[in-house]
Parts: sequence; structure tokens; C-alpha cells
Amino acid sequence: MKAEIITIGDEILIGQVVDTNSAWMGEQLNLHGIEVFQITSVHDKHDHIMEALANAEKHADLVLITGGLGPTKDDITKKVLCDYFDSQLVLDESVLQRVTERLTKRNVAMNQLNKDQALVPDKCTVLTNSTGTAPGMWFEKNDTIFVSMPGVPFEMKSIMSEEVLPRLASNGKAKSIYHQTVLVYGIPESMLAEKIEHWEEALPDFIKLAYLPSQLMIRLRLSAYGNQMEQMQTEVHRQIDLLKLLIPENIFGYNGDTLAGVTGQLLARLGATLSIAESCTGGNIAHLFTSNPGSSAYLKGGIVAYSNEVKTAVLGVKPQTLEAHGAVSQEVALEMAQGAQQALQTDYAIATTGIAGPDGGTPDKPVGTVWIAVISKHNIKLERYTFAHNRERNILRSSQAAINLLRQLILTEQPSLA
Amino acid sequence: MKAEIITIGDEILIGQVVDTNSAWMGEQLNLHGIEVFQITSVHDKHDHIMEALANAEKHADLVLITGGLGPTKDDITKKVLCDYFDSQLVLDESVLQRVTERLTKRNVAMNQLNKDQALVPDKCTVLTNSTGTAPGMWFEKNDTIFVSMPGVPFEMKSIMSEEVLPRLASNGKAKSIYHQTVLVYGIPESMLAEKIEHWEEALPDFIKLAYLPSQLMIRLRLSAYGNQMEQMQTEVHRQIDLLKLLIPENIFGYNGDTLAGVTGQLLARLGATLSIAESCTGGNIAHLFTSNPGSSAYLKGGIVAYSNEVKTAVLGVKPQTLEAHGAVSQEVALEMAQGAQQALQTDYAIATTGIAGPDGGTPDKPVGTVWIAVISKHNIKLERYTFAHNRERNILRSSQAAINLLRQLILTEQPSLA
Repeated sequence: MKAEIITIGDEILIGQVVDTNSAWMGEQLNLHGIEVFQITSVHDKHDHIMEALANAEKHADLVLITGGLGPTKDDITKKVLCDYFDSQLVLDESVLQRVTERLTKRNVAMNQLNKDQALVPDKCTVLTNSTGTAPGMWFEKNDTIFVSMPGVPFEMKSIMSEEVLPRLASNGKAKSIYHQTVLVYGIPESMLAEKIEHWEEALPDFIKLAYLPSQLMIRLRLSAYGNQMEQMQTEVHRQIDLLKLLIPENIFGYNGDTLAGVTGQLLARLGATLSIAESCTGGNIAHLFTSNPGSSAYLKGGIVAYSNEVKTAVLGVKPQTLEAHGAVSQEVALEMAQGAQQALQTDYAIATTGIAGPDGGTPDKPVGTVWIAVISKHNIKLERYTFAHNRERNILRSSQAAINLLRQLILTEQPSLA
Repeated sequence: MKAEIITIGDEILIGQVVDTNSAWMGEQLNLHGIEVFQITSVHDKHDHIMEALANAEKHADLVLITGGLGPTKDDITKKVLCDYFDSQLVLDESVLQRVTERLTKRNVAMNQLNKDQALVPDKCTVLTNSTGTAPGMWFEKNDTIFVSMPGVPFEMKSIMSEEVLPRLASNGKAKSIYHQTVLVYGIPESMLAEKIEHWEEALPDFIKLAYLPSQLMIRLRLSAYGNQMEQMQTEVHRQIDLLKLLIPENIFGYNGDTLAGVTGQLLARLGATLSIAESCTGGNIAHLFTSNPGSSAYLKGGIVAYSNEVKTAVLGVKPQTLEAHGAVSQEVALEMAQGAQQALQTDYAIATTGIAGPDGGTPDKPVGTVWIAVISKHNIKLERYTFAHNRERNILRSSQAAINLLRQLILTEQPSLA
């Protein structure tokens, strides 16, 4: 089954609102085995919506429409639907009753605009909106199903979950799909592609691979299509096991995992504690760890040592080390980590010192130069990185690199956790 | 001028990625007086992309295409563009040189996939990508301009800002517009609307007002349309001056300003220093300040005191205060701020302690309870907040509230800075 999503409303086109509705619907349909092949966002204009509906009908078996159902004047979807389906508006008593009940509950007086919400095209099946006043509408035309829903996210979601998806399931429209996303860090896309080329070519026909690169990682999504769910799952996981053999050190997690979340889990499993001494990352590493619920189990705290004074006074970095090597040096990174480990009494410590930019670079140490130290009770990892020239990205990338270095140190010391 | 945006890639259609690119492009085009009338997201499929291009060409003067330009096999945009524009791939020496330089800088060896990035259709004008390896491509066909860009947001943004928008402006395709966005904090939208109702009604016809509410602030955008730029600018700024009289304490900045950036500027102008003691915000306040270039001028550092041990050992919070009032209390918030001010020797200090959730709430102190202390050498501000129940939002909102409290304290002490 192929689906198209049409969203109606200027607010998306002028960038006032990010279209999270489509992403949610796309994910839901995908999980239910329905392939979304196009998302179209159009103006609140009669002819334009008519054209989008006709285009969608050519290709799609299912067309989900959101937006333009509010009680205000610029919402014209219902009128367009009447024209498209050669239908006319009639009063639906059950909708009127629901609207009346909702308004009464909130002590709002009924006006004409509210009453109009109970007018629906006579050729549709009304879908109950349990969280708002505008009902969903289900049409069928030449083997294509059209569903119109309000654009308010929680109203759309309740109509999808309570009405649309159950109907599609009971109509037998859903085909089976299974997918898993493998999260890869620390390898450029082109090198990754080369390393896994033969594995990729040998994937069975019913498994599709997608590369989803972002600033901080590459996600590899394996999607299996077919009718035999158990076999599909087994094969996807078998392929992931093969992939692990090719890039064991680069796979850090799956699906919704984050580097800080996964690394925090390792610490929690060990019952180990962590402290963080940050210069150039300015608190972002601590923020990434503490964004995860339960981080207080392993993170005792951190010190943002932005000035040299704080590096010496709080972290105990020696003034002569700063003098001899400069603040951005492996020596200072190491003393920062040791200072944090000692002051906060932790098993592990991370330290970063670098030049985030845009100012402060020198020929020897250009903007983007970062030293990272990660230490345990027995081991030390020290790395120098040279990132690009944008402050925000330098901070992000340094943070991720530092967390990944800690992950590697833990896994080197505790290979059984891998 | 009418524009269509086409995004290519399955990741949007299956909801793995929210299409923020289109929102950003829509906003930029809108601000430059170019109307976006459709956004279309399509599959990585040859015929489907061809059809989307042909549909767009029927209506649009400008078609912006993103995605599908990576070096891997599922990225087919370049091949489709060759077919659509009856073109063939040729090696572009300048792109090859840029790719080589980028890889050399990162110590990554060049492989065939990287080399292929320098292949571009012979009928396009190459647009420099200053932040990545895949170049932008500019085509013209039957009075329609087509621009293809990578889907990685920062790469797309740099090509748009540095290449596409300047070219459109110099071609005279952009209509005259002047806009300013006023940033408002600490007032609900409905109350704001009430307070500025008469001002809004009295705006001249050529100035449009848009409310852009988000989680952390409300942006009020004033857009003036017309031919007389000087008059448009004068009038917009006159209206902003009037607005300031209505909500003086809520306007914290303009356009791209952030609360941390603006507050940091105040500190820099005073030559004053800041330290931060964070419990529930876990480093995020330090991160927000240090995201701004030049923050080292005023931020000496911070301490993330996640465990009580760190609160006492590093910040000098008294064990009996923790015992008597609990970690989430005004007494502990104050001692944390005083401890940071003393340990880091600063003029101002911020402290936060609260329950970010999802666990740790009690009937007295539910999840979302936060105490914030802000101190100078002579004054203290202490506030209790009760935010909602989502960890991420609690951290964000607590951080913003704390920074705003510091801003208010500075402005109370130094009214001439307002």
C-alpha cells in the first residue's frame, strides 16, 4: 500500500512551524507497513489543494490530509473536499453533540463558528476526534482512501491512533515491515561505505539499507519487507551481527540511543563514577550526560574551568604547566582530568581544553584545536583533534569525541561489556 | 516570484528525520519576499524525482532541491539532474581541489567515492560549499531556476546564505522587505496580545505583525513591504520604540539574540565576572553562555554539583543545611551561589537546584520544582519555579529562568544599561 501525506496551511510554507506532523505520520505508517512515497505541503488555496488531491490520487492508495479544519476564515479544507468529492455539507448530529459537550465543559458559549464544525460532507464517514472539536473525515474514491484531519498535533495523533490505523488494520491494508537502525561513530561516510561494501552487496533482496549521516554520527537503517515477521527479524539481526564484525569499534548503539546515554549506561553497569573538567566544551559534556534520566547514579559533577585561574584554583593545574605548554596542551588536559578525579573523588574523569573559536587561534594551534584527556584509575587516553572553524560545531564535536574516548577506555578495560 | 522546495530522501518519509530544512528555507525565502507555495518530499527514486521536478517547473520560478548528494549508493540526485537537464557529469577541478583540501586537513585518504563528489553536470553553475564536500548546483531552464544542495542542514544553510540568496538578490528576483524581530520573555501569549492590542491595531498598513511563540520566548516579527527602504526602516524602529514602552521588562533582545548572549553582553559591558553552580540544569547554563563567542571575557567557570558530596566539598554547602532543608531548597541554592562566587572569585553567581525528573519528586516538591539563586556583591534574588513534568523542558526552562533572573538583577543594579 502506498500513501501520500498532504499538509495544508501557510504556516509550514513560511517556516513558522516545522512540519512534525508528517514525520510522526510517516513513522506510524511505516511501522504499520505502509510506504509513504510523498509528503506535500500546500497553500490554503482552493485550486492548489484540488490539484494536490488529484496528483495524490494518481499514485496513492491512501491520502492523509491535515490542516485547514479550524473554525476561522482561512481554513478552507472542508469546502475543497466537498468540491473534490462532489459532496455537500450536512449537519452531523453526533459531532454537534460532542462540540456542545466540550464547550459546556469549558464554560464557553456556542457560536456559529463552533456550530459549523458539525457540518461535514455527506459522502464521508465521520471519525471521532476525542481531543478537539473538528472531526476526522474518511472518503473513498476509485480505490483510494482519503482521510482529512485537523493540523493540531495531538488531535491528529488521537484520530490516527484511535480511528485511522485500526481501520486500515482491519481492512487488511497493512504489509509487514521490520527495521533496525545501527548507530555508527568515528568513521567518515566514504570510508564506512568502502569497509562495508561487500556486506552491503550481499544483503538479501528483501532488506534495504539506508545511510542517514548527520553531524555527529552515521545511522545505518536496515528495513526488511515481507510476510514472515519472524524470519525478517532473524535475518536483520543476523546481518547486524555480521556488520559488527566489520566495524566493531564504530557501532555504539541502536535506534534511539545517544553516545552519552550509552556511555552512561556502561558506567552505571560498572557502578563507576565520573567527573568532567571542561574548558572549550563549556559545560556541554555535563549537559549531554545529565540530559539522561538516572545520570545522577554515575555523574558526581563537573567543573567548567573557562579561565586559567579556575584551572589552577579549583582543578589544581600547576601554573608552571600552563606557562610552559599553554592552556591548550596535552599536559594541561591531563592535569585537568586528574584534578577533577581528585577533587570529586571519581573512578573516571574527562577533560577538554581547546580553541572553540572564532578567535584565539594561532598558526601552531588554529581554531578547532582540542586536547582531550580521559582517565581511569590506571589508564590514560590523550588525543588531539583538529575540527572545523565553527564554534557551535567545534563544541559539539569535541563533546562527542570526548564521550566516545571515555566509551573506548571503558570497553578496553572491561571488554566483557562490549 | 514563486518557489517550490523539493526534499529528497526516504528518511523524511519514514519519519526518522523531521524536515527542519524546509522550514528554514521557507522562512528565508519569505523574508526575502519570495513566496513558497509548495514543499514536496519524495523518495530516493529516479522516476519519482523526475516527476516532482517537472511538476515544480510548471508552477515555480525557483525550485530548491535538497538531499541525495552524499557519496553513497542510495544518493541518486546527481544522476537524476543529469537526465532532467539533458546533461552529463564532468570533473570540476575547483571542487576536486576543495575536497582534497578538506580531506588533507582531516588526515583522511581520498578514495573513489570522494573523487566522485567533484563530478558535476556540465550544464550547472557550481555553488561553493564552504562547510562540506558536496557542492551546490544552479541550473536554469525555461525561466525557472533550479538549485540542488546537500541535505545536511549546516551545509544547506551555508550554500543558501553565501551563494543562493545573494545571487537571487543581485538578479533582482527579491522584492524589498525590511524586518525586525523583537524577542519577548516571561509573559504568556494571551496576556501579551492584550497588552499590545492597541499598538497592533494602529500599525500602518505596510507593516505586518507576526506572533512566533516557542517554548522559551515569543518572537514578534515586524515586516515592512514597499519600495522606500529608508522610510520602512524608520517606521519599523519607531514602532519598536513604542512597543518598548508597553512591555519594557519583557523585551530582552532582537533578531538572533539569545538570553545568554544578551546577558553576557551586559556583563562584558560592566567588566564583571560570572560563576555558575548547577545541580538540576547539569551544565546547560554554562553551555548556553559558552556557546557565545567572547564568553571567556566574563565567565570564569562553573561547577556542576550533581551529587551532595560535590555541593559540600567544592561549593562549601554546609552538610547541616542539606540535612535541614534538603538539596532542593532556597537555603542550598543560596549557599551554592555563594560558594561558587567565593571559589571562583566572581562579581555575580548563579545557582540552580531542582528535580528535573522523571524520578525524584515528592508531594511537597514535585518533579519540576526548582530553586534559583542569583547574587551580586550586594544583592540576592531567590525564586522558586514549578515547571512541567518533562526532563528536557525542565532543564531548558530552568536554565532560561536563571539567566533571565541574572539579567534582571544586573538591570536593577545598573539601570543605565537597559
